[in-house]
Amino acid sequence: MYKAKAYSAAGETSPMASTTIPRRDPAEHDVQIEILFCGVCHSDLHSVRNEWSEFMPTVYPIVPGHEIVGRVSKVGSAVTKYKPGDLAAVGCLVDSDRTCPNCQAGLEQFCPNQTLTFNSPDKHGAAPVTYGGYSDSIVVDERFVLRVPSNLDLAGAAPLLCAGITTYSPMRHWGVTKGKKVGVVGLGGLGHMGVKFAHALGAHVVVFTTSPRKKEDALRLGADEIVVSRDANEMRKHAGSFDFILDCVSAEHDVNAYLNLLRLDGNLTLVGAPAKPLPVSAFGLIVGRRSLSGSAIGGLPETQEMLDFCGEHDITADVEVIPIQKVNEAYERLLKSDVKYRFAIDMASLKSE
Amino acid sequence: MYKAKAYSAAGETSPMASTTIPRRDPAEHDVQIEILFCGVCHSDLHSVRNEWSEFMPTVYPIVPGHEIVGRVSKVGSAVTKYKPGDLAAVGCLVDSDRTCPNCQAGLEQFCPNQTLTFNSPDKHGAAPVTYGGYSDSIVVDERFVLRVPSNLDLAGAAPLLCAGITTYSPMRHWGVTKGKKVGVVGLGGLGHMGVKFAHALGAHVVVFTTSPRKKEDALRLGADEIVVSRDANEMRKHAGSFDFILDCVSAEHDVNAYLNLLRLDGNLTLVGAPAKPLPVSAFGLIVGRRSLSGSAIGGLPETQEMLDFCGEHDITADVEVIPIQKVNEAYERLLKSDVKYRFAIDMASLKSE
Repeated sequence: MYKAKAYSAAGETSPMASTTIPRRDPAEHDVQIEILFCGVCHSDLHSVRNEWSEFMPTVYPIVPGHEIVGRVSKVGSAVTKYKPGDLAAVGCLVDSDRTCPNCQAGLEQFCPNQTLTFNSPDKHGAAPVTYGGYSDSIVVDERFVLRVPSNLDLAGAAPLLCAGITTYSPMRHWGVTKGKKVGVVGLGGLGHMGVKFAHALGAHVVVFTTSPRKKEDALRLGADEIVVSRDANEMRKHAGSFDFILDCVSAEHDVNAYLNLLRLDGNLTLVGAPAKPLPVSAFGLIVGRRSLSGSAIGGLPETQEMLDFCGEHDITADVEVIPIQKVNEAYERLLKSDVKYRFAIDMASLKSE
Repeated sequence: MYKAKAYSAAGETSPMASTTIPRRDPAEHDVQIEILFCGVCHSDLHSVRNEWSEFMPTVYPIVPGHEIVGRVSKVGSAVTKYKPGDLAAVGCLVDSDRTCPNCQAGLEQFCPNQTLTFNSPDKHGAAPVTYGGYSDSIVVDERFVLRVPSNLDLAGAAPLLCAGITTYSPMRHWGVTKGKKVGVVGLGGLGHMGVKFAHALGAHVVVFTTSPRKKEDALRLGADEIVVSRDANEMRKHAGSFDFILDCVSAEHDVNAYLNLLRLDGNLTLVGAPAKPLPVSAFGLIVGRRSLSGSAIGGLPETQEMLDFCGEHDITADVEVIPIQKVNEAYERLLKSDVKYRFAIDMASLKSE
């Protein structure tokens, strides 16, 4: 065991503050990573404030962060895929049972016994729960470590580990390719990645937004069109024309308005998770054999595929890099959607703590 | 033009009563069918009472009926597939534009210019709208006429044309085959066909019902298990285990309880159409990448495929055969779900009118 620097919250109303945490020494199959950047995901905030207490109560202190990129500093004796000095990344999972059918299919995100990167019971016993990426280092089994293409900006690469795979995976699953018409609802941390991926996959990309002032930005990110969703006339023009719509909105909203825009066999996938049930019209689904589904992150093989795809297409998230001392302020701005489009913490700032 | 005997309603509060209606003489591509049996679908009742006025106002008089089986009595000069004396059937559609991509793909149910069997504008001008199967004969273009396997009981075959294809089509679309676990929610006209098809396709079939007294019947129809949906413990035992669930309930109900029973990539298809939007939990879809969709009838090729499948597996609907003079009473019983499981009108009874 060794001590690592980190930022943690001591309780659901406490601010994030500097601390030290225990980390295990790398065992046989472990990779120790010096964390260079960690993205700030809305789940960090939900967990810090115990807003998901119903299904995943927070154990304090909590060290959040599951969009981790860094450099390998040490490897266990049995590690074959990484050596010190390599770029490496860790996403939302640091372990799973590896034996269930989902794990065997590389769909670790659906393993019933997965270990999340933070706030999951720590099987290694270094601490009561796992501690995430708001830290200067982390130790992870090599099976859950990913390669980062060397051409990518590392701060912008960090959010790929959650916002990236969360938007990439459903597009691949539902067959987004050249010639398809794809909608992205909500241009935030997830949505802006959705636009980049849909564009890079060759689709015609339409961004739905409530703010016409986002138009220029949407086009810059790769959108072909923008539709102001409050304008019923504009919406009607697109009726029955979409192959796939990625819905990134976590607030309450009218999903039927988007279902009606799907063509025959079109799919709308929710990646935002509104707390209250969404009213869904059966007629909207029956007409055109449409489907509504959900998706969350991706398995390890697909996450690596996504990172490699980003390397080929030079895709990273648009980030605002902050020192870790500004993370409490960043949380407040996140609540107002005041970020384009993701915060990435420069972990060098932790050295001065 | 010639006169046909029929039963019609003169207004939304009028009972069904004997009448005569104009039918066109068979043209080049037309098949004239002597109707032997016509199933009673809930849509008949909705249309007769103008309950779908919002999107499909009823034009009176209305002659409902779109589950038609009979015998060819005459054919036009260009008809190649049928000859007088052949068994024949007609479902929910009697025409479409035949040129749109959906028609060309044999998915006439999604043609934007389809002609429904009743209450659609009559392109041939014999009457203001098309008249359905509560009649002693009908004239239909041969493209919209189907073959009936000779081994099938004709009264029981009639409901295949709507209740049959409505349940068969989504099972084929979502890959119900041997070894899959399939749920059927609601054991009525649609549901009892769903059970028969899922069983014949080789699936393990579970019927969900609010009435434990339906158990024996469900097993007789082909179910392997029955689950009383109000029993939370029973429901929990099946969590995450279904490949496909066919939801045949038209009333308000908790679809999330069923979504939670789907396994990874499982699908729940709605074929009942509750009038009010259904509250759907995003979490239920995100966990397990589940999907919720809808489906309605099927195209002509798939309807023929379904009839042939029924011929091979000797599948017909369980019907209570009634004379047409009892149709008003049948409607009242339909409202109380007092039928096992579909009424079929014996059209011989119309001769005495």
